[in-house]
Amino acid sequence: MLLERISSPQDVKRLEPETLPELCAEIRRAILTSSASVGGHIGSNLGVVELTVALHRVFDSPTDKLIFDVSHQTYAHKMLTGRASNYLDPAEFGGLSGFTSPDESEHDLFSMGHTSTSVSLACGMAKARDLAGERYNVVAVIGDGSLSGGLAFEGLDNLAELGTGVIVIVNDNGWSIAENHGGLYRNLAELRESEGKAPCNLFRALGLDYRFLAEGNDEAAVERVLAELRGIDHPVVLHLCTTKGAGYEPAAADSENWHHVGPFDIESGAYDVFPRNRCEDTETYAGITGAYLLNRMQADRRVVAISAATPYIMGFTPLRRARAGKQFVDVGIAEEHAVTYAAGLARAGAKPVLGLYGVFMQRAYDEFWHDLCLNSLPAVILDFGSSVFGTADATHLSFFDLALQGALPNLRCLAPVCREEYEAMLDWALAQNERPVVIRVPGNGVVSRPELLANGVIDAGVAPCSAKVGRTVGEQVLHEEAGETVARGGEARDAVCADCAGLPVSFDEPRYRTVRAGSDVAVLALGSFFGLGERVCDALTEQDVTPTLMNPRFATELDERALDSLATSHRVFVTLEDGVLEGGWGEKIARYLGPSAVRVLCYGVHKGFPDRFDAEELLAQNGTTVEAIVADIRSALRDF
Amino acid sequence: MLLERISSPQDVKRLEPETLPELCAEIRRAILTSSASVGGHIGSNLGVVELTVALHRVFDSPTDKLIFDVSHQTYAHKMLTGRASNYLDPAEFGGLSGFTSPDESEHDLFSMGHTSTSVSLACGMAKARDLAGERYNVVAVIGDGSLSGGLAFEGLDNLAELGTGVIVIVNDNGWSIAENHGGLYRNLAELRESEGKAPCNLFRALGLDYRFLAEGNDEAAVERVLAELRGIDHPVVLHLCTTKGAGYEPAAADSENWHHVGPFDIESGAYDVFPRNRCEDTETYAGITGAYLLNRMQADRRVVAISAATPYIMGFTPLRRARAGKQFVDVGIAEEHAVTYAAGLARAGAKPVLGLYGVFMQRAYDEFWHDLCLNSLPAVILDFGSSVFGTADATHLSFFDLALQGALPNLRCLAPVCREEYEAMLDWALAQNERPVVIRVPGNGVVSRPELLANGVIDAGVAPCSAKVGRTVGEQVLHEEAGETVARGGEARDAVCADCAGLPVSFDEPRYRTVRAGSDVAVLALGSFFGLGERVCDALTEQDVTPTLMNPRFATELDERALDSLATSHRVFVTLEDGVLEGGWGEKIARYLGPSAVRVLCYGVHKGFPDRFDAEELLAQNGTTVEAIVADIRSALRDF
Repeated sequence: MLLERISSPQDVKRLEPETLPELCAEIRRAILTSSASVGGHIGSNLGVVELTVALHRVFDSPTDKLIFDVSHQTYAHKMLTGRASNYLDPAEFGGLSGFTSPDESEHDLFSMGHTSTSVSLACGMAKARDLAGERYNVVAVIGDGSLSGGLAFEGLDNLAELGTGVIVIVNDNGWSIAENHGGLYRNLAELRESEGKAPCNLFRALGLDYRFLAEGNDEAAVERVLAELRGIDHPVVLHLCTTKGAGYEPAAADSENWHHVGPFDIESGAYDVFPRNRCEDTETYAGITGAYLLNRMQADRRVVAISAATPYIMGFTPLRRARAGKQFVDVGIAEEHAVTYAAGLARAGAKPVLGLYGVFMQRAYDEFWHDLCLNSLPAVILDFGSSVFGTADATHLSFFDLALQGALPNLRCLAPVCREEYEAMLDWALAQNERPVVIRVPGNGVVSRPELLANGVIDAGVAPCSAKVGRTVGEQVLHEEAGETVARGGEARDAVCADCAGLPVSFDEPRYRTVRAGSDVAVLALGSFFGLGERVCDALTEQDVTPTLMNPRFATELDERALDSLATSHRVFVTLEDGVLEGGWGEKIARYLGPSAVRVLCYGVHKGFPDRFDAEELLAQNGTTVEAIVADIRSALRDF
Repeated sequence: MLLERISSPQDVKRLEPETLPELCAEIRRAILTSSASVGGHIGSNLGVVELTVALHRVFDSPTDKLIFDVSHQTYAHKMLTGRASNYLDPAEFGGLSGFTSPDESEHDLFSMGHTSTSVSLACGMAKARDLAGERYNVVAVIGDGSLSGGLAFEGLDNLAELGTGVIVIVNDNGWSIAENHGGLYRNLAELRESEGKAPCNLFRALGLDYRFLAEGNDEAAVERVLAELRGIDHPVVLHLCTTKGAGYEPAAADSENWHHVGPFDIESGAYDVFPRNRCEDTETYAGITGAYLLNRMQADRRVVAISAATPYIMGFTPLRRARAGKQFVDVGIAEEHAVTYAAGLARAGAKPVLGLYGVFMQRAYDEFWHDLCLNSLPAVILDFGSSVFGTADATHLSFFDLALQGALPNLRCLAPVCREEYEAMLDWALAQNERPVVIRVPGNGVVSRPELLANGVIDAGVAPCSAKVGRTVGEQVLHEEAGETVARGGEARDAVCADCAGLPVSFDEPRYRTVRAGSDVAVLALGSFFGLGERVCDALTEQDVTPTLMNPRFATELDERALDSLATSHRVFVTLEDGVLEGGWGEKIARYLGPSAVRVLCYGVHKGFPDRFDAEELLAQNGTTVEAIVADIRSALRDF
């Protein structure tokens, strides 16, 4: 086996050219065998095998700088830079990051997993090289799907002016995660059809030199053109055509589903893809969302679902996309445009619903601030996967979203605790016209709480009652003066004022809900950490403390009335959030209660870039376990 | 006078064509007269007079949708939509927003002041129109300078696929704020030179129809082509050539300085531009920064200053830019690229220093997170203008920056209290290789504190001493066990351990400095609000409270040792920050101290979009005045 004998790029260079097809075949088998066992990015990695071999034969990494955009196509690169055993030995499968990682190898220049960054990084490295008077090649490899991100354009635009030697390889396989969207792809198609000769050329229009090679999966051909470009003194784009999933029929035939898969059977191509093939599963929030939105679209043609290249996270399979027709828009990898586009839609009376991974909300921070929030436009943003239990790669950590949203004026972020509350929030968000609404879809699984729905605590089907009716809830009258429709046990319905019974649930004002009424300790358990709050309260109850359990529902605004009221009868407040503490929701509570005599204990995780972590372990390291929280509460109670 | 008789676009349509040159001349005079009195965006507004008249003659606003990118070129639009008196009557000068504002007029569709958003907004409005089965024109007007922003590209790319009737007018005056930068401008020049006929065309490469008109300051010519485009059924770019500053010689001759000016003399063109002509003034942070960096560049060719189209904020006049040569880079309006470019530079051993307005850091949130922070690369970012005393337009509020930075792992944000500390922080930031460092340049003016420098309190010229030497500071020994080089009064130098005297100031670890030692009340006054902290402490001292005054220096990390130590002898903590409270720095202190028995009072401003506010009034509304803070502190002390 050739691959076993390769411990560095020098070994690749020493191989006879006629052995290279066998090397490529071995790499391909290793990609398939390891990914079949532990999952991985299949299509993109199979497509760049020949390119990667050619890169390491022509250039001298790490002296020459190879920058892989997104870096989810670097399995072959890793195999050729001393890490082949991680793809050959089943005991080592899954032992590496799925992305480049400077901690793993000097050949990995950046930790990176977001698209469209490579050209700007290459500009910076080339500029540093020139200032230092050094000479080496800087090469960026970027997929066609990543070109639609505005940062890639900014990088290409600036590269022309930088004017120095940089090689940008556009790996054109005709696919983003799903199909490509945008006018630039017509130009790529025109260039493919004309073998690079079409006079109207996006890259030349940006001031860049341009080369075309149709045979991107022919190692010898790629090697020849790279050898010609090595040492070039000005920026050049090499437009290379490859096949996503090359060499494995199931992946080549179904690019979208084989972009990233979980474990699969190589022979049959049978796989369990998470979460795409669960789009139809009504036990996932993807499935629930897709079904809900398609239903709403049929009733109201103003409803538009928008995705930025990840339609499956919101349950939009190809079939649902076809059914939605013009009411579903995939803008490609272009989160900034997606948000500003939603602002334009809302301003003109449509009902945009934009589904984003929490981690990619980051790409559109200014568009949230300036286009949506400053104009207070009623777009609905569904924030998927935001949880400590979400993606565990450092590049894709999805628990910074509340800190991102917390300071945005006019934005209302709602955090449902169950599917019933999620759908009630969707109903409300689509009906209102006042402001942008983010719904933080629980990232730790679907929970159904029909019993809470039935007794009116969480989803009472009534708006807050402002009439001071004489009403009792079980043995308690709670917040009666404030007109809350809170309850305890199963008797809440009886206590609802007749005037407001039957009104839809309202999120017009930030109002927390009391789920269990107690004293001394108030546990405020936000959204996906509501279950943790229940467990903390159960444990306290066993120790003869009777805590109050709140469902705060509002993640970026405070219910000051509820906090003031609770502060009169509770000494210890506990905030539980499935996210980063710094800048998060709990700190807002701590600040609000700072001047009062109560103690506030905030739980979540501290900022950092943990990589491939176990969520329970990470929480334990941050003291966010039932045992640790209960111990802290008991200590705080003793302290008074 | 024609302008006085125009109260709506209908009146513009009724004018005879031969009177239009006079109308344009009147508009131009009104722009100059009002701006000469209260300042304004001169160049861009003078350039689009004819275009604006033509737009309102051809289209029917507000049924037709006119979207002005950045919207700082809308003085003529405002005059023609019922607001002429604000530019004609000196009593009303300055009474309007400098940007479009839906609160002012139904003809203003969005509050907007950031670039590159108009095409995406137009896409959204056109999509909503089509879904509703309505028929109206959607027109976006975007300057050539705004085209370099990635969002504009994402919008254009998606517009082609949207495929419906949208007119994008590229107002090509050949300038950004300063000169344009990027390869796309070569293509615009090629198109200008070929009268739109060059076969390689950026807009056509993005799949868009394209029209060219050289005579953008000829109202009749513009009107003719707009009339042809009205009702078009597909997207089209109209490339229009105009002259920035047209009709006023000083502005046309010096586009950069006349982009935005303060009051000026129309006859002579004499003006007081803030802050550009103060770039050389060593009493501004622009001047201090430019001089410092140029000096550093001459000593170290790895130092690179980077700007995203605002070189003057960091003191880079055309002269300094010329002197810096290849060590100064203006990337144009492309903040995302600027940050990722800095990451590439730092990775390859250069010393990038990126100067950004705080408000525009927002555009690069993900690039901060993913490219700089995840990779912990030692770029230095200078955060200018971030203060309640900064820009007072709702579109450009610059006090959200700390909330933005607070959750970013690995990022160290330093907040200097004076110019001496600022320069010490610059020294340290450029010398270290561990992490990205933001320096929050005070946005409320330059303060010099040589006396604090002399007695070693703020800028002692020594690293924290870890030796437990027996040292006294006046009559007190402070934090001796922690090895702090804190001091009180003028005797600090004597107390410094001999081993560490003379070492450079270190910001290697987050350590607060005690400036005045007291008890009961600890005032933590961050950066530009240090002076407020002094005044609060002075007022408390007059009332026989002896507070401790801290210079926290670190805005995104806590000195837990100092907080723990202070909590043993202080009952009330006060945080003062020149920024938004929600997600800000003070909340981190409140959370950290939440479990302890102390009270924490946080001051700053609450999130919101105040527009054209008085900073002192805004602070008063938020209870952030010396009187209010002292009253709160006394109340909190009584409460124990």
